[in-house]
Amino acid sequence: MAPPPASSTNCVMCELPAFQRGSDDHRRIADLEVSTAILASREQFYLGYTLLVLNHHAEELFDLDQALRQQFVEDANRIAEALNKTFLPLKMNYCLLGNTLRHLHWHLIPRRDTDPTPKRPVWEDPIPHVQLSDDELRQMADDIRANL
Amino acid sequence: MAPPPASSTNCVMCELPAFQRGSDDHRRIADLEVSTAILASREQFYLGYTLLVLNHHAEELFDLDQALRQQFVEDANRIAEALNKTFLPLKMNYCLLGNTLRHLHWHLIPRRDTDPTPKRPVWEDPIPHVQLSDDELRQMADDIRANL
Repeated sequence: MAPPPASSTNCVMCELPAFQRGSDDHRRIADLEVSTAILASREQFYLGYTLLVLNHHAEELFDLDQALRQQFVEDANRIAEALNKTFLPLKMNYCLLGNTLRHLHWHLIPRRDTDPTPKRPVWEDPIPHVQLSDDELRQMADDIRANL
Repeated sequence: MAPPPASSTNCVMCELPAFQRGSDDHRRIADLEVSTAILASREQFYLGYTLLVLNHHAEELFDLDQALRQQFVEDANRIAEALNKTFLPLKMNYCLLGNTLRHLHWHLIPRRDTDPTPKRPVWEDPIPHVQLSDDELRQMADDIRANL
């Protein structure tokens, strides 16, 4: 397939170093085939909540050619399976939203029976703030990467 | 690939006629390759909110073999593109949750700048109840199908 445009002006996910391939950010789990997995900063009340960011700027699944779309899904599947092995959740949730940051990225969320409302989407109530240390995040990323 | 099991006991999505291939339910949009698209019953405040139900019982993307997983995603992509053509939304949202009904199904949601909080997930506030008539739902399903 033709190489896609590398970035889009004024897109946080195109520009912030943490979301780029090869970043040494303490939240980074791994670079996959066409995307980079990073622990979410503000959602670790749901331990393991991961963002998987496509490595170029696109906004809808149907804007990707089929090969890239399928690879992006295989990347998500691989991270979801690693999260499942790491945390043994009740269920995985997989969402492409993009309402605020339009750049395609998966929200991959391990759900547990200890969640406040395990049968409902995580967004129904405000997600409590949990601040993990950089070392704790790096260790969690290491643990997930070991299960890839 | 080997034929998967057709159904699981006590699964609403395996058992309710509306979710089966070939159903004449007024909400049914279409049967796709491995899944059936149906307008959501209780979420039409977000006009066009569609459920895309896998035609056999499975609970996680990584429980599917790769060919089936990719086809399930291609089905979702096809419906999302049809919803985009039909409603010209600001953004499409694509979610696999399964917290209540574990059977794999996509939530495909057209988002508009007239939404109460267009930059946030639809679940942050209760979704207002909108009751469309059977004829209105059938017409909407027809309109979406025409864009497949």
